[in-house]
Amino acid sequence: MNKDAYFIKKTFQLAKKGEGFTSPNPLVGAIIVKGDRIISQGYHKKAGFPHAEAEAIRTAGENLTGTTLYVNLEPCCHFGKTPPCVDEIIKKGIKRVVVATCDPNPLVRNKSITKLKKANIGVKVGLCEKEAEGLNEIFFKNMREAMPFVAAKTAQSLDGKIAARGGKSKWITNEKSRMFARRLRDKYDCVLVGANTVVKDNPYLNGLKKIPYKVVIDPYLCIPESSHLLKGNLGKLVIFTSFASKKKVNPAPRKTPFFRTRGGVKKIPPAARVFFLKQRNGWFVLREVLKILYQLGIMSVFVEGGSETLGRFFMEKLVDKVYFFISPKIIAGTKALSSVGAEGFSSPNSCPYIEGIKIHRLDEDILISGYPCYKKICLNC
Amino acid sequence: MNKDAYFIKKTFQLAKKGEGFTSPNPLVGAIIVKGDRIISQGYHKKAGFPHAEAEAIRTAGENLTGTTLYVNLEPCCHFGKTPPCVDEIIKKGIKRVVVATCDPNPLVRNKSITKLKKANIGVKVGLCEKEAEGLNEIFFKNMREAMPFVAAKTAQSLDGKIAARGGKSKWITNEKSRMFARRLRDKYDCVLVGANTVVKDNPYLNGLKKIPYKVVIDPYLCIPESSHLLKGNLGKLVIFTSFASKKKVNPAPRKTPFFRTRGGVKKIPPAARVFFLKQRNGWFVLREVLKILYQLGIMSVFVEGGSETLGRFFMEKLVDKVYFFISPKIIAGTKALSSVGAEGFSSPNSCPYIEGIKIHRLDEDILISGYPCYKKICLNC
Repeated sequence: MNKDAYFIKKTFQLAKKGEGFTSPNPLVGAIIVKGDRIISQGYHKKAGFPHAEAEAIRTAGENLTGTTLYVNLEPCCHFGKTPPCVDEIIKKGIKRVVVATCDPNPLVRNKSITKLKKANIGVKVGLCEKEAEGLNEIFFKNMREAMPFVAAKTAQSLDGKIAARGGKSKWITNEKSRMFARRLRDKYDCVLVGANTVVKDNPYLNGLKKIPYKVVIDPYLCIPESSHLLKGNLGKLVIFTSFASKKKVNPAPRKTPFFRTRGGVKKIPPAARVFFLKQRNGWFVLREVLKILYQLGIMSVFVEGGSETLGRFFMEKLVDKVYFFISPKIIAGTKALSSVGAEGFSSPNSCPYIEGIKIHRLDEDILISGYPCYKKICLNC
Repeated sequence: MNKDAYFIKKTFQLAKKGEGFTSPNPLVGAIIVKGDRIISQGYHKKAGFPHAEAEAIRTAGENLTGTTLYVNLEPCCHFGKTPPCVDEIIKKGIKRVVVATCDPNPLVRNKSITKLKKANIGVKVGLCEKEAEGLNEIFFKNMREAMPFVAAKTAQSLDGKIAARGGKSKWITNEKSRMFARRLRDKYDCVLVGANTVVKDNPYLNGLKKIPYKVVIDPYLCIPESSHLLKGNLGKLVIFTSFASKKKVNPAPRKTPFFRTRGGVKKIPPAARVFFLKQRNGWFVLREVLKILYQLGIMSVFVEGGSETLGRFFMEKLVDKVYFFISPKIIAGTKALSSVGAEGFSSPNSCPYIEGIKIHRLDEDILISGYPCYKKICLNC
């Protein structure tokens, strides 16, 4: 590995330290090198905190003339919560800048690089580019499509079941898998589940290091008032429903927390956000759900099931990444619940297939992750 | 690795050459070593052919005094189709015998080893024993339980489906997986399928190197007269049925080939063997099926589905080994057929789990193989 590649890969490691906390910003790491010596480094810790380049420049505490800056993403050229990094780089007399990947945002792409070149700074772009894009797969999806990145997870038996015939589902995967899945929640802005999962499992849906947004797809507003999700951290609870309506009561609270549902009047605490959506063919259009979440500033969604919800996400071609936790058990049973339900695709030749597969052992469990590709999909053949 | 282990592992490689052709005999390889030099070797090629030890002794063509014989299984001490190897070893003046594992048959176990010791031959037993047992897992099962070894195979999507909602199942796995599965047929004495699989796929069920016995579980004798299985090689076709009866016709052929079935009178060629079995709770007791196959000299069964058949085999705890060919596709669908059907187990905590897992990539496909363990099974909890 040459020197540039070595230092660029170091920026990836640095960038990853901010994982789960920089949204809506990307993960960025920066290193300043004089000769062969790293004289300072920085990473973007959290939205609102200094950019990686600014952090590295600040902590250098010495003359930067003649140094090389390594950064995994093109430096910014706009005033946001912090001043543009590109001006700072020029001002400090940095001689050379090595960038792994350009900014995916078409509005700013290449602007900083052009500006650096004009200032007679040597610029090298595109080193370990694919890896750099993978590191910021959430940010790249956001910038390119103005949609949240969607990761889907299942915890299933080897024969694809997430519950036994009578409904028992605890536990299919082992503790190591379950901890791994909790750590994954830290990577994403929200965890999304269908109402059945809340009714059946009454989950908390927290990560290990953070409390993510929690989103429930609940057409009939059937989640019980006693659900863990309806207690605490309500500012982070989002519910999508359709067959419920607000009930006026006197005196009315600030946001009326009573809803008429099929099961009677239900009280949803006012801090929870409830969105009313129309259904099409008996279900929500999940693309609309995602657009609303994006408007709320939710840049990534971790879909944890159940069967129907996951199936619908695949049918709408919305899943960007999958994590299949597989326990080597045989649950069997025609009536046992399958990991991916809904209507299903019509042929093995025209369904999504997973690319870039990685296999990971978690003791006896197996984690298969990868990226669904929808090119071959044909819903009618 | 020491010298003995090195040569014993060589016998495993030799033994494997006979794979699929020695039934009902085990796989055996033998090596004769003088000093550090292999002076001859042999393996059991086919039932009725010389034993590995005899073959090695015959091809040595020199004085064997002072040599060491390596063999993966305890030499025989009985007259069968060939004379006892143990007498030959003693007669030839072989000084030392290294054996990986004793004979699993309790009637002959250790007899040869005792005889060799009495003849003042140095004997070392139990080197790489586990591996040696794995090599002859079929033979060990046969000797210990007087039952065929059962391997089960599925070709499924990542979400456990073997057909899409409309029934389409061609092809789920890739060509490499399908070739691998055909090679597996060469390892076993018979391929077993349910009648639905014959009706739907009309398979040939041949291996690459041999034509195995073909067994069909067909309660209503519903396989079509035009099935590939009913043409050619009929001496190797076995059908289990219950709701059909022989129809007497005049003049009667040697074995009446006409059967009354629900779908009318069906002609099954006389060379096919048809067994009538009673059902219990709407299905055959598969243990009885296996016992009949064992009496026919079928020492190993490769179950290729479909969903219901595989499920039943697991429910009866009869599967000794599994091969899950997984294509990284998402077929989805509540109504899409699952790989392992039937009634299913009642809880993820009390279903079979797979031990000794091996993961193998076949291009983009994944093969997960291992050995089901039934210890935790509880059908009612």
